[in-house]
Amino acid sequence: MNENYLLKSENAKRLYFDVAKNLPIIDFHNHIEVKDIAIDRTYENIYELWLKPDPYKHRLMRICGIPENFITGDAEPFEKFLKFCSIFPMIAGNPVYDWSRMELLKVFGISVLPSENNAKYLWDEINEKLSSKEFSTTQILKSFNIEYQSPVATLLDDLTPFRGEGIVPSLRGDSLLAPSEYFINSLKSKTGLAINDTASYIKAVCVILDKFAQAGCIFADHSLDYDFFENPKQKLEILMALAEEYAKRNWTLLLHIGAKRKTSARLEKLAGPAGGYAATSNDFPISRVVDLLGDVEKSGALPDTVIFPLNMSDQAPISVLQGSFCEDNVASKVQLGPAWWWCDHSLGIKNTLDLIAAFGAFSQFIGMTTDSRSILSFVRHDYFRRILCNWLDSKNTFEEWELPFEFQKEIVTKICYKNAKSKIKKR
Amino acid sequence: MNENYLLKSENAKRLYFDVAKNLPIIDFHNHIEVKDIAIDRTYENIYELWLKPDPYKHRLMRICGIPENFITGDAEPFEKFLKFCSIFPMIAGNPVYDWSRMELLKVFGISVLPSENNAKYLWDEINEKLSSKEFSTTQILKSFNIEYQSPVATLLDDLTPFRGEGIVPSLRGDSLLAPSEYFINSLKSKTGLAINDTASYIKAVCVILDKFAQAGCIFADHSLDYDFFENPKQKLEILMALAEEYAKRNWTLLLHIGAKRKTSARLEKLAGPAGGYAATSNDFPISRVVDLLGDVEKSGALPDTVIFPLNMSDQAPISVLQGSFCEDNVASKVQLGPAWWWCDHSLGIKNTLDLIAAFGAFSQFIGMTTDSRSILSFVRHDYFRRILCNWLDSKNTFEEWELPFEFQKEIVTKICYKNAKSKIKKR
Amino acid sequence: MNENYLLKSENAKRLYFDVAKNLPIIDFHNHIEVKDIAIDRTYENIYELWLKPDPYKHRLMRICGIPENFITGDAEPFEKFLKFCSIFPMIAGNPVYDWSRMELLKVFGISVLPSENNAKYLWDEINEKLSSKEFSTTQILKSFNIEYQSPVATLLDDLTPFRGEGIVPSLRGDSLLAPSEYFINSLKSKTGLAINDTASYIKAVCVILDKFAQAGCIFADHSLDYDFFENPKQKLEILMALAEEYAKRNWTLLLHIGAKRKTSARLEKLAGPAGGYAATSNDFPISRVVDLLGDVEKSGALPDTVIFPLNMSDQAPISVLQGSFCEDNVASKVQLGPAWWWCDHSLGIKNTLDLIAAFGAFSQFIGMTTDSRSILSFVRHDYFRRILCNWLDSKNTFEEWELPFEFQKEIVTKICYKNAKSKIKKR
Repeated sequence: MNENYLLKSENAKRLYFDVAKNLPIIDFHNHIEVKDIAIDRTYENIYELWLKPDPYKHRLMRICGIPENFITGDAEPFEKFLKFCSIFPMIAGNPVYDWSRMELLKVFGISVLPSENNAKYLWDEINEKLSSKEFSTTQILKSFNIEYQSPVATLLDDLTPFRGEGIVPSLRGDSLLAPSEYFINSLKSKTGLAINDTASYIKAVCVILDKFAQAGCIFADHSLDYDFFENPKQKLEILMALAEEYAKRNWTLLLHIGAKRKTSARLEKLAGPAGGYAATSNDFPISRVVDLLGDVEKSGALPDTVIFPLNMSDQAPISVLQGSFCEDNVASKVQLGPAWWWCDHSLGIKNTLDLIAAFGAFSQFIGMTTDSRSILSFVRHDYFRRILCNWLDSKNTFEEWELPFEFQKEIVTKICYKNAKSKIKKR
Repeated sequence: MNENYLLKSENAKRLYFDVAKNLPIIDFHNHIEVKDIAIDRTYENIYELWLKPDPYKHRLMRICGIPENFITGDAEPFEKFLKFCSIFPMIAGNPVYDWSRMELLKVFGISVLPSENNAKYLWDEINEKLSSKEFSTTQILKSFNIEYQSPVATLLDDLTPFRGEGIVPSLRGDSLLAPSEYFINSLKSKTGLAINDTASYIKAVCVILDKFAQAGCIFADHSLDYDFFENPKQKLEILMALAEEYAKRNWTLLLHIGAKRKTSARLEKLAGPAGGYAATSNDFPISRVVDLLGDVEKSGALPDTVIFPLNMSDQAPISVLQGSFCEDNVASKVQLGPAWWWCDHSLGIKNTLDLIAAFGAFSQFIGMTTDSRSILSFVRHDYFRRILCNWLDSKNTFEEWELPFEFQKEIVTKICYKNAKSKIKKR
Repeated sequence: MNENYLLKSENAKRLYFDVAKNLPIIDFHNHIEVKDIAIDRTYENIYELWLKPDPYKHRLMRICGIPENFITGDAEPFEKFLKFCSIFPMIAGNPVYDWSRMELLKVFGISVLPSENNAKYLWDEINEKLSSKEFSTTQILKSFNIEYQSPVATLLDDLTPFRGEGIVPSLRGDSLLAPSEYFINSLKSKTGLAINDTASYIKAVCVILDKFAQAGCIFADHSLDYDFFENPKQKLEILMALAEEYAKRNWTLLLHIGAKRKTSARLEKLAGPAGGYAATSNDFPISRVVDLLGDVEKSGALPDTVIFPLNMSDQAPISVLQGSFCEDNVASKVQLGPAWWWCDHSLGIKNTLDLIAAFGAFSQFIGMTTDSRSILSFVRHDYFRRILCNWLDSKNTFEEWELPFEFQKEIVTKICYKNAKSKIKKR
């Protein structure tokens, strides 16, 4: 893994080194712990930073048969780290293998392949580095050239930690569609408003939406799981009302579709609700999302919308939607988002690029976001950019687009930076 | 873009130049305006010929954020052309980019990449050519070596314009399955027959089917949209009765499945029913089509059937059907058709070839048809043939088929010409 | 087709020749006729061995339009063989083309491409070889280095023919979920037990399961067709009870999902229930399988499970499940199986590898099984291994995994041998 990682031709390298590499990062949707930034957290050891908070890595340990004790259980941090290193060569092909190597190289300058044999060496070497001030949360983040990131916050969250430069909240809307009594009561006391029907509920929500807007919020996220449309009546009514409110504020709506979160009850108990065992299904009806967007559009206020399917086979029909809704002077009003969650591997990224190009205009693609809980995950932008530059060059060559470099450069700049920026500037 | 466009090896070139290039075109399903041929229409400017009638191009302008005024609105033709040229480098990757370049090169000898900078030059250069008699509708068509094409006509259409050499009507059956009162009344007055139930309706339809048959019709097309099977009773009964009638006349049935035409009501109003904003979904149940074919077969009269899914993820299960229905001495009784509509890009074409090869016998594939409204779209046969020759050669090499050239030649000839021809000769 | 078939680099060759080639075969699910082994059957001619028992070949003959008389009808064996040879070059791209060539080369040392011209030569040449004792069933099997195979048997089958070395029965469970009266009565008389409800039914089944276990059975197979969940109540209850029983015995559950077996009634009559005309659909709901596994897990006894989707577009969501269920010290508790039935071509194999790698850990993949009725089909392990070695090398190179050879070797050994072996040893 050297500086030319994944770049297979001179032109791919030129696109990467002269264009992509130097563009600031816009990470429009992630789950970073903003409190860690606010207190400039440091890390006791590599386990705390690299392994403990990463459900992707836990998932792969389970796939390789590692006992849960060494994953989320009572084993010592080093034992857990050792187990992960011992399976590391066995997870080649999974993006965690690529990301992990990029993380070690980028943040710690380490290029050896983790394995059982060198786990002790890595543990000592990295922990020594972590003990210095250079590896605090903000120092690590500084190394990534992040211009803008918007970690999610729920409507009830305190927005004061969002004070860092370039850090603004985005809305995690999941709890809004089927609000619990606790949620309603909290909303009442936060707003001082009465809530007794959908209209008054939306009105109260809007008070907080305005606070989010004041804090710079521009993206609102909703997860429509695989069975969302099985009994959608009230949820759908609320979602449509919210979508209009987002549009009025010039926010962009993110729809994460098709997750099947209930799988192993045993793992749910052991690893918590986001423990890396979620699945997807093939029966989320895309036609219903299209109807939903059509109905919202009729109200006169359709927000820009980015759709993230978890079933890779749904990327094709979703990519077609780039041409189904539009607005004057808005590129890609409704579009397929970057490869989401389990799909965020080189195969998924290339599939996304292939499909948006073939079914629409990939130059208008909003590009990468990490959707991650880890501050190390910003290396994924570099991963994406290398794949993008190499993909564009190989398409331009093999499919004989004969696109002059100036246009290749413009497209790379748009996908890595300008297209996401235009959603932010719109506000 | 030179004569070797998309041909990557000596053998691919040999297959193309010695075999594919010289075969006449059979375009068994398109939407060409036959009146334009009958009157040998000429074109005032490149906008009228190239941009105005092409919803694919309008769609891409919308994706790039061009205001509707410059697409279907009041802007001047040159302004619209200029806007399209200005986004042109940004649509690389979409087949419209490839087709457009092929159209300019094949018909006008122009090989520069359209862009904002050269739009005025292109406008002047091409319009001058268009003012000459050489670029009338029939002259342009002559340049394509078309042996047979069958533009669609509805049952109520006047068939007299279908008089050109090699131009016969094919049936667009969409209005037949859920006939409007107007349709029924028109059919009554056209046939002089009473219509008071399904049987008498089919009888009246058959009178016109026979007129189509006299005019040389051999292909009947039905679109089964994504929700066709949600409430299919009457539609299904009529479709099954019609399928039997097609079989009796040795016609081939074309089923276009899975379209989701209702998307943006705003675009429907602005751009009309075929305005390039259609979507697809993932919930059209293929099992029901299989049952339909099985039920028709039981009647003893299953027509040859070509199925065109709009959701690319459905190409795999449809390709399997090549082996599920058969008839002595008929190759590929039921088969996956060429990549349809939004799927008709190099990715979709290669996917179709990959799947028919892997799940059946690609040598029996019926091959390309344009399904287009534009007389320039016949370049897509050349696009398809180049991709086919290159694909076959790379498979033969990489998968080590070791297929002698004589058999490669036979397969290319079958896919580009003979297999479609056999459907026509069958009659 | 030489010894380097499908191996494109020096490292791919090294992986194949130094590692994969020498590993014994474990074929954990097939439909071999064990009586042929028990009596050491010999074959009168190549038709009896190669063509008559192979519905894949019949299917391709139908696709190419060969009249049924030459497939399952009254034509002479040589005529049928001649017809198959005559279409042979036209089925390039289908795995039957590759397998057939491998079969002729491996078993008979014949490397010419079958065609109409050499059919008579092949017929004479091969039949002469077949007349010798060297080509009896057991002799042919010996040439494959099979350590373990488990042909299916139903609960009512006589297990005495399963006496060969390395041959143990696996359970074909299809008849168990919706038992016929005949099946119930046979079970009663076989076990001497009363059966009057589900519990007593399961109890009786368990008596025979124990006999299977004594005979070495370790794999139980159920086919959940595309409409399994349309009216599943009783079937589901039985399947869940059986799954627990399998888990108690440390068996592995094989789920073959999404087949659509009813297609052409004509072919069903002509070719029998397994005549090669089955289809698949896109509406088998994967979420329901996940719920099923989750429910069984709650009982405390989830068997290791391998899932085989017939719709290639379902391979992606199924591959995600590798991370959704787990057990300490068990790798790949629930996993996508090798490409099944019509999907078992190089495209499907590579897609399987791509997906398991990207969505999980391909090193833990259980690897190849033939699922075939023909003793010649063991060449498919060689086909799989060559594709695997070449795929691994090209990934390692192109995706820059930089995986040292020792780990590549370990992964190949696991996928070709150890992972399946671990399921057997578990017992």
